[in-house]
Amino acid sequence: MKDQHSSGQNGTDVTVIGLGPMGSALAEAFLGNGRSLTVWNRTPGKADALVAKGANRTTTVAEAVAASPVTIMCLNDYTTMYRVLDSAGGAFEGRTLVNLNSGTPAQARAAADWAAERDLDYLDGAIMVPPPLVGHPESVFLYGGPRDVFDQNRATLALLGDPRYLGADPGLAVLFNTALLAMMYATLNGFLHGAALVGSADVPAVEFAELALGWFMPVVLAPASLAEQAPNLDEGVYPGDLGTMEMNLNALEHIARTSVEQGVQSDLPRLMKELAEQAIALGHGAENYFAMFEVFKKSAAETGGSR
Amino acid sequence: MKDQHSSGQNGTDVTVIGLGPMGSALAEAFLGNGRSLTVWNRTPGKADALVAKGANRTTTVAEAVAASPVTIMCLNDYTTMYRVLDSAGGAFEGRTLVNLNSGTPAQARAAADWAAERDLDYLDGAIMVPPPLVGHPESVFLYGGPRDVFDQNRATLALLGDPRYLGADPGLAVLFNTALLAMMYATLNGFLHGAALVGSADVPAVEFAELALGWFMPVVLAPASLAEQAPNLDEGVYPGDLGTMEMNLNALEHIARTSVEQGVQSDLPRLMKELAEQAIALGHGAENYFAMFEVFKKSAAETGGSR
Repeated sequence: MKDQHSSGQNGTDVTVIGLGPMGSALAEAFLGNGRSLTVWNRTPGKADALVAKGANRTTTVAEAVAASPVTIMCLNDYTTMYRVLDSAGGAFEGRTLVNLNSGTPAQARAAADWAAERDLDYLDGAIMVPPPLVGHPESVFLYGGPRDVFDQNRATLALLGDPRYLGADPGLAVLFNTALLAMMYATLNGFLHGAALVGSADVPAVEFAELALGWFMPVVLAPASLAEQAPNLDEGVYPGDLGTMEMNLNALEHIARTSVEQGVQSDLPRLMKELAEQAIALGHGAENYFAMFEVFKKSAAETGGSR
Repeated sequence: MKDQHSSGQNGTDVTVIGLGPMGSALAEAFLGNGRSLTVWNRTPGKADALVAKGANRTTTVAEAVAASPVTIMCLNDYTTMYRVLDSAGGAFEGRTLVNLNSGTPAQARAAADWAAERDLDYLDGAIMVPPPLVGHPESVFLYGGPRDVFDQNRATLALLGDPRYLGADPGLAVLFNTALLAMMYATLNGFLHGAALVGSADVPAVEFAELALGWFMPVVLAPASLAEQAPNLDEGVYPGDLGTMEMNLNALEHIARTSVEQGVQSDLPRLMKELAEQAIALGHGAENYFAMFEVFKKSAAETGGSR
């Protein structure tokens, strides 16, 4: 592994392969911070604006990877990454590859194995912001892979945003990304379902938002209070003294019934009710709602899910 | 309608009927604020502690309602409320009834009609805090019903917490309550599903919480940013320039696939994916994710839901 500031044979600090909107934003961030840059894209014209700003454009992928100690890949998927790099032959020794494709954890782990066979140091990352926010110090990027590879490239990666190291498992970045997005969609759906419920009585979404987002979310569902439950999840301890799963099931049945009665989407509350029933069937009826973690940790087949 | 500070024939300011944990907390809040109080409970012994603190206990419901200009009902359900009050005969004229049972909006509206037939002014409310928080000025209580009835009783209701008036429809308090709880469960499930996803790679929930609740929820899903979307929901405008429903469907498919691959609960992401497919089938494929509002506003049957 080489230090991230020692340039490669063509003398650049970093290489970016894949110049879609995100790859171009990454390249701009490096140039804007005064780093020397090599770029490659299947359609060479996409590099024109970067070349005008001083980037070095190579004809082949092999030249691009050889040009810098670290190459950032920003392609559509792992298949494309394999095809592009395999076209370059094997001139990778001592180079670091930072892959920012999105995929599954299994794909990321397979890519790490693939990279090892080619003597490439490998990090797998996930970008948590849209292209316009790349390069801001608070924009979070997630990385998994060998600690020393991350540490050696931290200064380079910090030019793109706030690099967070998750652990040695190269699947962690995409896994965290997926988990955070799962939470995001569930939360957005909850807000939209709530807005639809009150909307069925002609209440504007703006009025629901005042109470739901101006008070309920930041106060009743305060992230800091939720976070206090996390140690209990790790210990599997869910004391039911402030409310039990049975009580929550009643509330969820009520939400599902009201959704039907008001003529709005009821699939989501009905599924949440079914999941609470599964928690009770697993023996968590007298525990608090966070015992749902035990349901979420199991596959649908294990808990009697019907879908 | 009488002013909330003019006492009834037995000289108390307020009556509380139903002395479970919540009803007792309401009664304590009135006593603690120096209000004269009448109480009634099916099991009279539940009033002992309140009587020891100065509350007036009546033998019959009729006496209890007659004792104060306003009666707060805190029973299990509407059926119980009807049974209890009908046992009292019709001595209600000029009295105000504030019902804090939980039920559906249709039940609340039927109760308002029932109360009108008995010359009772009627508010239907929902308590958004557990009993220990009753009486704190920031504890939110929701109310629907005639504006003048609310205004005349606002000072009394303010002894219980922060009274929020939602509108003339008596179904609004339970409807808002249901909508907020729907949002709460969806958000909690999203967090637990996310924690289960990273847990499948042996990441502790505490570590997920750091990123998910310490950063993602308050920054990426900031309530104030979500609230900015509310006017667009009311106008049905969902510009897709920063990301389309098709892109979100890809992400949801990815979440569902990863959930299966990691052996965790996949029913929730699969349903979210199906709902996004319904949005696309309704013609919202090129709009942003908030167009899901159009799916949530419709019944499952209207959008091709299968459940």
